[in-house]
Amino acid sequence: MKRTSRDIRTENRYDVLRHIIAESPVSRQQLAAATGLSLATVATLVGELLDFGMLVEGGYEDSDGGRPRGLVAVNAAGGALIGVDVAETYIHVELFDLALTVLARADEELRPGERDAARLVGRIAAAVADVVERSAVAADRVLGVGVSMPGQVDREGGVSVYAANWNWHDVPLLDLLAEHLPYPLHLDNPLRASTVAEQWFGAARGRGDAIVVNLGTGVGAGLALGGALHRGVTNSAGEWGHTTLVLDGRLCHCGNHGCVETYVGAPAIMRTLGELSPDSPLLHPDDQTATIEALGRALADGDPVAAQVVRETARYLGAALADLVNLLNPEVIVVSSWVATALGEPLLVEVREAVARRALRRPFASVEIVLCPIPTNPVSLGAATFALEGSLAAMKSKHHRTPAANGGRGSPS
Amino acid sequence: MKRTSRDIRTENRYDVLRHIIAESPVSRQQLAAATGLSLATVATLVGELLDFGMLVEGGYEDSDGGRPRGLVAVNAAGGALIGVDVAETYIHVELFDLALTVLARADEELRPGERDAARLVGRIAAAVADVVERSAVAADRVLGVGVSMPGQVDREGGVSVYAANWNWHDVPLLDLLAEHLPYPLHLDNPLRASTVAEQWFGAARGRGDAIVVNLGTGVGAGLALGGALHRGVTNSAGEWGHTTLVLDGRLCHCGNHGCVETYVGAPAIMRTLGELSPDSPLLHPDDQTATIEALGRALADGDPVAAQVVRETARYLGAALADLVNLLNPEVIVVSSWVATALGEPLLVEVREAVARRALRRPFASVEIVLCPIPTNPVSLGAATFALEGSLAAMKSKHHRTPAANGGRGSPS
Repeated sequence: MKRTSRDIRTENRYDVLRHIIAESPVSRQQLAAATGLSLATVATLVGELLDFGMLVEGGYEDSDGGRPRGLVAVNAAGGALIGVDVAETYIHVELFDLALTVLARADEELRPGERDAARLVGRIAAAVADVVERSAVAADRVLGVGVSMPGQVDREGGVSVYAANWNWHDVPLLDLLAEHLPYPLHLDNPLRASTVAEQWFGAARGRGDAIVVNLGTGVGAGLALGGALHRGVTNSAGEWGHTTLVLDGRLCHCGNHGCVETYVGAPAIMRTLGELSPDSPLLHPDDQTATIEALGRALADGDPVAAQVVRETARYLGAALADLVNLLNPEVIVVSSWVATALGEPLLVEVREAVARRALRRPFASVEIVLCPIPTNPVSLGAATFALEGSLAAMKSKHHRTPAANGGRGSPS
Repeated sequence: MKRTSRDIRTENRYDVLRHIIAESPVSRQQLAAATGLSLATVATLVGELLDFGMLVEGGYEDSDGGRPRGLVAVNAAGGALIGVDVAETYIHVELFDLALTVLARADEELRPGERDAARLVGRIAAAVADVVERSAVAADRVLGVGVSMPGQVDREGGVSVYAANWNWHDVPLLDLLAEHLPYPLHLDNPLRASTVAEQWFGAARGRGDAIVVNLGTGVGAGLALGGALHRGVTNSAGEWGHTTLVLDGRLCHCGNHGCVETYVGAPAIMRTLGELSPDSPLLHPDDQTATIEALGRALADGDPVAAQVVRETARYLGAALADLVNLLNPEVIVVSSWVATALGEPLLVEVREAVARRALRRPFASVEIVLCPIPTNPVSLGAATFALEGSLAAMKSKHHRTPAANGGRGSPS
């Protein structure tokens, strides 16, 4: 819990690299201006990142007659990061270079009931080995692997504490994976993975207080407060889907009534559609994805039933987001995940109006509500970002002669 | 937003002094163990606090034959702090020594409609001058004055942005006060004042993530996350009273329906009593305080109507607190303010059961729900604590020769 000077140094490293990735090539002076750090601090941090092979020197800035300023850029080939998004029905793996460009992808389907941990671990490991091989990246350049697992995870211990889909309790996932994979490993869940992706590469970049709301089958909120992920005392924060919107309302699978999730998750939107128009051709009773995508298309075509479903959903979602605005006073709320992608800006327009009706004036005036701007899968990107953060936290400058502490499991050799 | 090494040093100062105030006299070794800081860091921080006159050396610890360990204690006479709690109907001022013992108090009644800013400022200034005089503390020993104002405040600018009771908009309160008072001045609101009091002296001390819920006429939540007060982007965070518990429910004075405040604030509890038992002798239709206090006494006497009102209130309050547990995963929730004091542990017993029914298992298992343990007014104590924090943040060690930066307004001498 206690923050140390070492934490500050690590966060400054994040901050500098984040700017370099976004703005490459960039001068140390520009970095100092963008981060608020002193030029001396930036020079030290850039020096460390150069030593570590994460950056390269590249050219000079145009200057008005003064001494030319050297530019640095991210060294795309300086390392590789792997992000794994494990969900109910698939394993999705991406290997990134240090510019966060995808070099290789692997997709595995999971059948319902495929719940044996050793088997699942074997399939994850095989998919990771596959992307390493296909991208032709040398194994010793892989800086780490981030794994996003649904459900509750013990990040420090690398344990999947509870995963409803597979009825897993306390599966030591990273220990099992470490038997197959010689890389530093990092575990977290999709909510926090997509939030860290927004912090590094998306709409939360440079924002002090940001909330990332995931709208899928389930719903939840990632909280980036004071620039850092708020995890809570047992890494369980963000269960916004299980906050009460309608006391004694719709029954939720968690056992309660009236949870936000029962009004704005994909099954809830299907239910709203079914109630408004039981015979709608948009309704695919056994297929959430098909229904939500049909709704999205119908919305674009000006279909009045689709518009009404979205308006009703926005009424619920707006009230639930207004709660976050009033309680947490964030600078930005990012609406993410596949339901948000399918319903898009037409949903957001209605949602902003609904939030305006319910939020207090002062916090509402200072919040932006936007769709996730990340064009690829934010969960595997975020999982890879956990690996990047892990390698930055474990980095030792050459000035230190002590053996490197390792933030993850295993060793990059 | 960016945290610097200087912020860390200030927070470490807070942490060390907090422990010394609680445990005086105490050795540097004990402080290092309690705070997790190195002995060298503790020695430096203690040295600074000694130089500044906030501590005194005092005696030696019993030791098992080793070198005796010097003890330090808070120097109660080393400075004075003033906390001002301005509310709808009163101004309450307390002057504390550095052991946070009250040396003098002043109380002023405010009549409804007494809304002239210059007049109110004059009355606050007179009350402050009065406690300084009566406590016989030299003016140059007053380290600062903290003022808690209801409503929305701009802490940095010292402005009362909006105070509903007086229909104030953007009143530059600290600039007005500075014309009368030669002390560093600090402004915030009662929610954050009572939260910082819990962090320093109450149930949130040493807890990473804590929530302080104020139950009064209005209700709100102070959020101490990652050890620091979460303020939000416009210092408006904590409006938990205006989150939705019952969509389309009871009308709230904020214009919405179904806000938490309309079910658990004092007027809401009166309404619940009136609905359950319209002719109850507990009901004082024009007097919230008398009604809530009568309920509290009847509860202690085993009155069945009182028990039913508390059970119904706990059902609402439990659902609303479960939302905080699920969303923020705190280590402790402190229930504070006068309604909580009046209804006490019988309310808490029902509330814990209601939260257990609604919160998710993992975050519920790690949260404690307690009454505010601070025996005096936590708002004026918290306001004085803002002054203490301000003087610690502005403190310069003797090793620095630069002129002292001043965290507040005005100057202590």
